[in-house]
Amino acid sequence: MSAHASQTERTEAAIGDVTAYMTRLGQAARIAATHMRRAVTGDKNRALLAMAEQLQHRRSDVLAANAADIARGRDNGLEPALLDRLALDEGRLDAMVEGLQQVAALPDPVGEIEGLRFRPSGIQVGQMRVPLGVIGIIYESRPNVTLEAASLCLKSGNASILRGGSEACDSNAAIAVCIREGLRVAGLPEDAVQVVATTDRAAVGQLIAMPEYVDVIIPRGGKSLIERISREARVPVIKHLDGVCHVYVDATADPEKALAIAVNAKTQRYGTCNTMETLLIDAPVAAALLPQLADAYAEHGVELRGCDRTRAILPGMAAAGEDDWHAEYLAPILAVRVVDGIDAAIEHIERYGSHHTDAIVTEDYGLARRFMAEVDSSSVIVNASTRFADGFEYGLGAEIGISTDKLHARGPVGLEGLTTRKYVVLGDGQVRR
Amino acid sequence: MSAHASQTERTEAAIGDVTAYMTRLGQAARIAATHMRRAVTGDKNRALLAMAEQLQHRRSDVLAANAADIARGRDNGLEPALLDRLALDEGRLDAMVEGLQQVAALPDPVGEIEGLRFRPSGIQVGQMRVPLGVIGIIYESRPNVTLEAASLCLKSGNASILRGGSEACDSNAAIAVCIREGLRVAGLPEDAVQVVATTDRAAVGQLIAMPEYVDVIIPRGGKSLIERISREARVPVIKHLDGVCHVYVDATADPEKALAIAVNAKTQRYGTCNTMETLLIDAPVAAALLPQLADAYAEHGVELRGCDRTRAILPGMAAAGEDDWHAEYLAPILAVRVVDGIDAAIEHIERYGSHHTDAIVTEDYGLARRFMAEVDSSSVIVNASTRFADGFEYGLGAEIGISTDKLHARGPVGLEGLTTRKYVVLGDGQVRR
Repeated sequence: MSAHASQTERTEAAIGDVTAYMTRLGQAARIAATHMRRAVTGDKNRALLAMAEQLQHRRSDVLAANAADIARGRDNGLEPALLDRLALDEGRLDAMVEGLQQVAALPDPVGEIEGLRFRPSGIQVGQMRVPLGVIGIIYESRPNVTLEAASLCLKSGNASILRGGSEACDSNAAIAVCIREGLRVAGLPEDAVQVVATTDRAAVGQLIAMPEYVDVIIPRGGKSLIERISREARVPVIKHLDGVCHVYVDATADPEKALAIAVNAKTQRYGTCNTMETLLIDAPVAAALLPQLADAYAEHGVELRGCDRTRAILPGMAAAGEDDWHAEYLAPILAVRVVDGIDAAIEHIERYGSHHTDAIVTEDYGLARRFMAEVDSSSVIVNASTRFADGFEYGLGAEIGISTDKLHARGPVGLEGLTTRKYVVLGDGQVRR
Repeated sequence: MSAHASQTERTEAAIGDVTAYMTRLGQAARIAATHMRRAVTGDKNRALLAMAEQLQHRRSDVLAANAADIARGRDNGLEPALLDRLALDEGRLDAMVEGLQQVAALPDPVGEIEGLRFRPSGIQVGQMRVPLGVIGIIYESRPNVTLEAASLCLKSGNASILRGGSEACDSNAAIAVCIREGLRVAGLPEDAVQVVATTDRAAVGQLIAMPEYVDVIIPRGGKSLIERISREARVPVIKHLDGVCHVYVDATADPEKALAIAVNAKTQRYGTCNTMETLLIDAPVAAALLPQLADAYAEHGVELRGCDRTRAILPGMAAAGEDDWHAEYLAPILAVRVVDGIDAAIEHIERYGSHHTDAIVTEDYGLARRFMAEVDSSSVIVNASTRFADGFEYGLGAEIGISTDKLHARGPVGLEGLTTRKYVVLGDGQVRR
């Protein structure tokens, strides 16, 4: 143990066999889920607000635990970027408290019945929104994810098992106390949210292999984590892979909008999945627009890599190769390609894109309509920045992630994505002939 | 080769390497899917009606191919029940033609935009229903499934790869000619529906392991087929496992409704997944209702197996054990258990049921509401027979199957279950601040 041995390291000795421990969590979650399924909205909201209060009360505990994580991270040579994601301060705690209050204020999706209609037989048939059951969340360093995930799973009537990064284990344990206490105060089962109290990697392997106790796994983190979990899981996974996003500027675009959108989509933030990575520009307007764009990008220090036609207009630029069309840079680098119209643009997006978020800039009604119908991405955008593709901007209130899957949930996943619909049938004695 | 060597056996030599062949089908399906995504409703309907016409024209070809399958089946000692499912006749062909016309008449789900609303940023955000892409269907002996599956995948804008049972290979090949011709007439890509032309079992293994070409697999058939496919698939599977369905007759039930529903749910058909397998009866009314129920079941030749309390009321009945509570009999056998109120009933259903379809008979408002909220099944029914749980009775127009999964589609799956929703964003130059 290092000088800053974690609280968790001390608890781990007590846990013993990890498989048995995770099985116990799974069983407890399954029981809690049957209670959560019938939990009324008021109790769920009370629990969320009680958690927020607990977090206020225990600020110093949480910050002390976080300081221990940070100190241990420094000892272990954690990168500054990771240390920054790990760190909590008064501002981040305020945001966590506010997040809980916001989820409490969201409408409860559970129990909503859609499309209840009479059938010729006399029965009424509709679909009722219900929780998925038990949700396993696997995430990395940011300890605020613990509360975000807990609150969204709770509000949607699910039990959850949360497995955070080992570097945040003390912070997560301190937050877990607030969560448990909030559940207790509201009279909800304390096992409705369980924070895994071991950093043993075998815990993840077991969590994703218990279909009898876990209904779905949501991994949040780097691509390699998500790929590994998807490959090994014996439980359905809602996953978020690459965001290779495009903006296509058509010849019919309003040049001012094109400029504003193309610059914003790249430069508003570099490390996000909905940031544009390749700009496609229609040949007739390339010569007019590219120099203006290049100036704007230069101001932001964005490196451009272009196709031959782009470089003919902007000499001296680095050449873009196949790797660039596939790249999710997550950095101030942009690939630029001159294309011949919407067909070539859609073909490029289909071939190189990741079906995440793609935008067209055009004033042509027919082209806008075609782009919306034909581009097979989780978000298709006309005349706005790709950076809008997230749960808050879309009005979901909060998001547990952005799904690049097609089944179940696609794009930003809010409370609704954590539920499913069952059929309800109301009759007064009908039998089938 | 037997005296009745199949047409397929002859084609198989030409196919050669099965993995390469299935990969070619996958690639062709992926290309066809990009065309189908943008196919207009009228063309899809024209293709369906043209298939129906082709089937009329080629009746004798299809029946001759089917006769070859039947003869080969007899040679191979196929069971009479399977031979019956395999057999086509004029009546079944009529039903297939009518099925195609019905799917043509259904509303097109593709392109529907839900919830398009303005956000504070000025963008409008909604969700557009779009095809899944490429759907693989794996099924057993009934050749009419070929047309059902083809028509539903087509109408929902998907490309499909259909792998029928080897015993129906000649029938399926003859039907495939009608499908291809219908697609050609309507100007849709002929690879939009591909019928696998080999009976080699390796074709299934390859079909479920090509995530780059296939978006979802829907197996239709026996439990062992479905379990094997779910276990081995590297592609999402929409599956249909057991139907261990319950009717719970509460003490507050109207006795006439209880009798009618309990009898219908068991006896209207025995081999269907929504048939009741266990009757739960509330203790206060057991003594009054069980003898009447026993008489009614006796008239239908249904064998009863009861718990001790049931047998105290109806002596001489066989005893039901743990296996009976878990059993999906699919036969004129019924397990009967006396329980103490709705809590015990829900507990039994939770423990032994398969979350398929469960019904309560009660005149009590609060109990009806509790049963609907707390029973975690794909269909929850109040005062009607479990036999209503299917796509036609629910008004879906048609069904590709009944999903016992929770994610994506739950319960009867119609056209909507073969689609997903993507976000569409409409702006006029908005950028993110």
